[in-house]
Amino acid sequence: MSRDSRHDILFEPVPIGPKTLRNRFYQSPHCTSFGAEVPSAQAYLRGMKAEGGWAAINTEFCSVHPSADSRPLISARLWDEDDARNLAPMADMAHEHGSLAGVELWHGGGIAGNLETRIAAGGVTQATEWGVGGYRLDKAGIRRIQGYYVEAAKRARDAGFDIVNVHGAEGGAITAHFLMAKMNDRSDEYGGSLENRARFWIETLEQVKAAVGDECAVTARLCIETYNGGPLGIRAGEEAYGFIELADHLVDFWDLQAGGWSAAEWAGDDAKASRFVPEFDDRKYVEAVRGATAKPIAAVGRFTNPDTMAEAVRAGTIDVIAAARPSIADPFLPKKIEEGRYEDIRECIGCNICASRFPQSAPIICTQNATVGEEFRRGWHPERFEPAANAEKTVLVLGAGPAGMECARVLGERGMSAVHLVDEQEAIGGSVRMVSAYPNLGEWGRVINYRQIQLEKLANVEVIPNTRLDAEGVLTYGAEIVVLATGAAWSADGTTALNPMPGAELECVHSPEGVAAAGGEIEGEHVLVYDVDSYFTGVAMAELLLRAGKQVTVVTPSPNLAQYMFFTGEGFRVNRQIRAAGAKIVTDHLVTEVGPDGARGQNVWSPDPVEWAADAVVLVTERQPRDSLYREVTADPERLEAEGIEHVYRIGDCVAPRLIAECVFDGHRLGREIDSPDPTMPLPFLRELPNFQTAVQPR
Amino acid sequence: MSRDSRHDILFEPVPIGPKTLRNRFYQSPHCTSFGAEVPSAQAYLRGMKAEGGWAAINTEFCSVHPSADSRPLISARLWDEDDARNLAPMADMAHEHGSLAGVELWHGGGIAGNLETRIAAGGVTQATEWGVGGYRLDKAGIRRIQGYYVEAAKRARDAGFDIVNVHGAEGGAITAHFLMAKMNDRSDEYGGSLENRARFWIETLEQVKAAVGDECAVTARLCIETYNGGPLGIRAGEEAYGFIELADHLVDFWDLQAGGWSAAEWAGDDAKASRFVPEFDDRKYVEAVRGATAKPIAAVGRFTNPDTMAEAVRAGTIDVIAAARPSIADPFLPKKIEEGRYEDIRECIGCNICASRFPQSAPIICTQNATVGEEFRRGWHPERFEPAANAEKTVLVLGAGPAGMECARVLGERGMSAVHLVDEQEAIGGSVRMVSAYPNLGEWGRVINYRQIQLEKLANVEVIPNTRLDAEGVLTYGAEIVVLATGAAWSADGTTALNPMPGAELECVHSPEGVAAAGGEIEGEHVLVYDVDSYFTGVAMAELLLRAGKQVTVVTPSPNLAQYMFFTGEGFRVNRQIRAAGAKIVTDHLVTEVGPDGARGQNVWSPDPVEWAADAVVLVTERQPRDSLYREVTADPERLEAEGIEHVYRIGDCVAPRLIAECVFDGHRLGREIDSPDPTMPLPFLRELPNFQTAVQPR
Repeated sequence: MSRDSRHDILFEPVPIGPKTLRNRFYQSPHCTSFGAEVPSAQAYLRGMKAEGGWAAINTEFCSVHPSADSRPLISARLWDEDDARNLAPMADMAHEHGSLAGVELWHGGGIAGNLETRIAAGGVTQATEWGVGGYRLDKAGIRRIQGYYVEAAKRARDAGFDIVNVHGAEGGAITAHFLMAKMNDRSDEYGGSLENRARFWIETLEQVKAAVGDECAVTARLCIETYNGGPLGIRAGEEAYGFIELADHLVDFWDLQAGGWSAAEWAGDDAKASRFVPEFDDRKYVEAVRGATAKPIAAVGRFTNPDTMAEAVRAGTIDVIAAARPSIADPFLPKKIEEGRYEDIRECIGCNICASRFPQSAPIICTQNATVGEEFRRGWHPERFEPAANAEKTVLVLGAGPAGMECARVLGERGMSAVHLVDEQEAIGGSVRMVSAYPNLGEWGRVINYRQIQLEKLANVEVIPNTRLDAEGVLTYGAEIVVLATGAAWSADGTTALNPMPGAELECVHSPEGVAAAGGEIEGEHVLVYDVDSYFTGVAMAELLLRAGKQVTVVTPSPNLAQYMFFTGEGFRVNRQIRAAGAKIVTDHLVTEVGPDGARGQNVWSPDPVEWAADAVVLVTERQPRDSLYREVTADPERLEAEGIEHVYRIGDCVAPRLIAECVFDGHRLGREIDSPDPTMPLPFLRELPNFQTAVQPR
Repeated sequence: MSRDSRHDILFEPVPIGPKTLRNRFYQSPHCTSFGAEVPSAQAYLRGMKAEGGWAAINTEFCSVHPSADSRPLISARLWDEDDARNLAPMADMAHEHGSLAGVELWHGGGIAGNLETRIAAGGVTQATEWGVGGYRLDKAGIRRIQGYYVEAAKRARDAGFDIVNVHGAEGGAITAHFLMAKMNDRSDEYGGSLENRARFWIETLEQVKAAVGDECAVTARLCIETYNGGPLGIRAGEEAYGFIELADHLVDFWDLQAGGWSAAEWAGDDAKASRFVPEFDDRKYVEAVRGATAKPIAAVGRFTNPDTMAEAVRAGTIDVIAAARPSIADPFLPKKIEEGRYEDIRECIGCNICASRFPQSAPIICTQNATVGEEFRRGWHPERFEPAANAEKTVLVLGAGPAGMECARVLGERGMSAVHLVDEQEAIGGSVRMVSAYPNLGEWGRVINYRQIQLEKLANVEVIPNTRLDAEGVLTYGAEIVVLATGAAWSADGTTALNPMPGAELECVHSPEGVAAAGGEIEGEHVLVYDVDSYFTGVAMAELLLRAGKQVTVVTPSPNLAQYMFFTGEGFRVNRQIRAAGAKIVTDHLVTEVGPDGARGQNVWSPDPVEWAADAVVLVTERQPRDSLYREVTADPERLEAEGIEHVYRIGDCVAPRLIAECVFDGHRLGREIDSPDPTMPLPFLRELPNFQTAVQPR
């Protein structure tokens, strides 16, 4: 296949001040939890995107000075020469592939936690939270912070960076704090009118441009719409567009985004999950920008479809395809489009698991791309595989869920002589088939689509659906290596902390699988969902039941509905939406018993009993592995030997139920290491540790 | 002064297997968020305690293998030679001072998050939480984990460690998971009877002892009482004592603790705050141990009083004074007792701010000891100060709260020619005077006591109470350097996010200061406390009002009462106690308006209005700095010059209201850097960063 000429426009160069993007693909800044503290992982992850065709790669938000320390959240930093030295390899790797490297300069103003540096946080106004103070900067303080931006910009330039981004999106940066009318209560020339509120940012841009603008492209990441009605909202219309007009002469292009990521009370959402919006949903906000600027416009939109991209460029809405999540799911997205290999695109599913690691200060992961974050430490390339040392072996992979599909794919890529992927269902996908049929999670089906296409292309892999194998069937199948990926099921007896739920055997009690199969149309008017899992399944149950016209009460021991979604950034909107849709949410409560008329329980902090009336109960407590087959198959080592089975492995949920991303990873990992000395345990990975130093300061 | 002979017993050596503790002071394992990743800070922090007289220093919990990765929480690690190399300097520093170094070996079993290593967590049973799986280990898996302990123990020995602790306290380790009947549902020889449940730990001890027991002392950190009624409790009686009997031949001493730190549903408390218990409150549990063991007993009890310590040893209850928090508040506690310098002891206040940084993955801090964690990076010694380069200057410190007291103390230690500490109140302490009078916070008054004594000892420091200075008074005072530490006050108008609360001006609306001054005896029967701050003040208000016989409702936008106390480990017990005492707690709700009959508001996730009836309202929204004096004093630079004032600085809450610990730090920092080029901004500190590496694995 070759490229459709409609997409040629995506490969036109875009001049940005003193630099030129070699095509229209721009990896927008996104977090990794690597920063400058895990420099090799940082460089290799970003460098992979340059190799994959992105014309620019960017750091995550990058603190300009110790007075803005985001710990425990991990930003990049340009505090000193050591930071610059650690970020420089990323720029070098960009250049190796003809790409540009950008740095997203950030100062947190009054909301920086400074848990590491212990400096009082100064910002636009005076506000406190949990004893972490923020104080109102005087003019000397403003000058000082602007000076930090300049120093950091110079360090970035000297480290080889091509683009300096004076960041103000997502509600976390001092530039935006000054701009936002609801956060800026100043009565001096930095508060009041739009011109005044824009002054801090514009002066900073002026100073940065004067310092490095001849050598670096200068841009500003701007939020053009915050969605929420909270105290920090800026209005999309005159405010954002007005700022663009005021600052247009100072930037070489605009880096635009909508939605803010911030504390619970005021947050909108930044990386908007596919459950909420389709590709380029912000188009209506971005379209209005053209009239306010003479500069190229880059904007994000979870772009994965080259038709959408090309049309948006052709229509004049944007000039540059900015993308964070799509570049994580497929670092080679531009190259695949360039080469017309559309079927190989691994599309982002918009689940935001990538984003969920940042608030946990943990390395980035991805549901679609098991290699992200593993480029350096495990030496994994998303598109290249080494032939396996034991490639002559035949492999049976039983269970075509996320782990099984991915394992079969990697084993196929590694050239195993024959890989059979067997599943009892009529199509591959396993648990993802059910999950992607949940309300609003349709895009999660891309986990299956990508793998289905890849598996079809692999001559050594055979997909065998509609086939149930018992232990005897596995033992006599004829494979030398057996990989069991038989998944998990929701506990039918409502087990939590090893205790089954009294009453779980009643007819009015349902499993998530049962509710999903019935499309929510179960018996009874009023349904109580008991959600201990506190991620997407409880929400899906509520949504299915609401769609079926039920009265819904969700009881959860978590302090919020869908607690994990506060990591993925879905929590704010989901908690509002489900209530607005009519569900009653009871947080902080345990259910201790179910009966034909409802359930009994208590507040987690108090023994007083509480009762809830309901006609039916859905138990979303925990998943349990379907591992009996593994035990049966491995029970008799002599029998295995007699059947010529050299190894039996298990992967994914049937080991321990976990995130889809971790199941994909588990399958991928086994495939990558099928020829290691002991594939049951991952090979050690390269670590990045500092060395002990002797204190040199006076003591 | 010289040592009281009653305390001589504390300085007797204690043989522990192949090693000997030089005295009875043992720094028990505690977290720092340094681990092996910040090796210099780790070594210097622990080494300072060896210098201060502790006969043994220990790491925090130390993972034995990548299959137990605690990220984002920071443990030490002994996964490989790099970790060993990074922990070895700590052992060297212990030896320099004649002390021993211990390592607390840990494997998290099925509850390890493994967010960094991505290995499925195997443990005693099958349980899931938020998609993070834990699977039931088979016997091969058990052997493998035991082998990891042995390998880590050997690495510790080779790195110079003297004590190997097979840790099982606080509910987080696989050893304890096997032991706890409520977590162990196995039907094999590792489940059921106490002997069976103890088997995993005992076998591990056997193997570790066989590997390193000739060269290292072997111990086990054991929780002898979990307090809570949750599913993971072990009973203090036959269970813990029974285990001690079973394992007694395998340890060289016992390292005992009570309380567990774990997930919300089952947690008791580990480091018990002074609000709950006095010194050595666990004595009754520890006393019963003597009959079960022939080995020395070390136990913690927030020991700061040498009389309590000596009596507990003399009574035969314990042999070794184990301490974490007291060793943080005063690394020189043993030496001060040894030298009879009792008045110099900086007693732990039991606020648990130290512990609050670990769940935030941030470096340890301490309310009493501003130098903890700063030993390496800022080169601060808790007991030594360099003469200031500008020591000839005179200093006025206005405001004798935590920042002002500490700053005056440090300036005095640094030999400034004259330091006047002036305060309008009749005694020093500032905000800590009010706070330490809150129910159950009496020990927080130690912040004042220590500084009062030290200030009295400093001939160059004069404390001047009962003196109010206005700007004119400051300007004409005659000091060359002015330090303003005028504190903060609770917002009287109920400001949140810059908006005052409608109705805040009503007579029925009270400030925390007002309620504190009235001892809770305000008008009205039913009082609503609106707590946005969500730390100790809201709790104190509720407690004061309950004591005064009021009906109390606490409304908070936080998902829990006193959200910050989930970092300090107080949250679980406080949330239960306040409810049990009769307060009604309404979480997740905003108050938007107060009136004479109560307040109106809404759920944070829903616009539907909610009303609460009340006769009075207390607004705990945010504190605002008392900084008008700073602005007045600095308004006219010419006047300053004319008056001979060379510098005006401000510190503590009057810059930005924050934790008491951070105010103490801020005052200390200014004192340490009063002679730096720009004391308004901290000097750069030494950082610990790894270097970029080139990937060597196949790609």
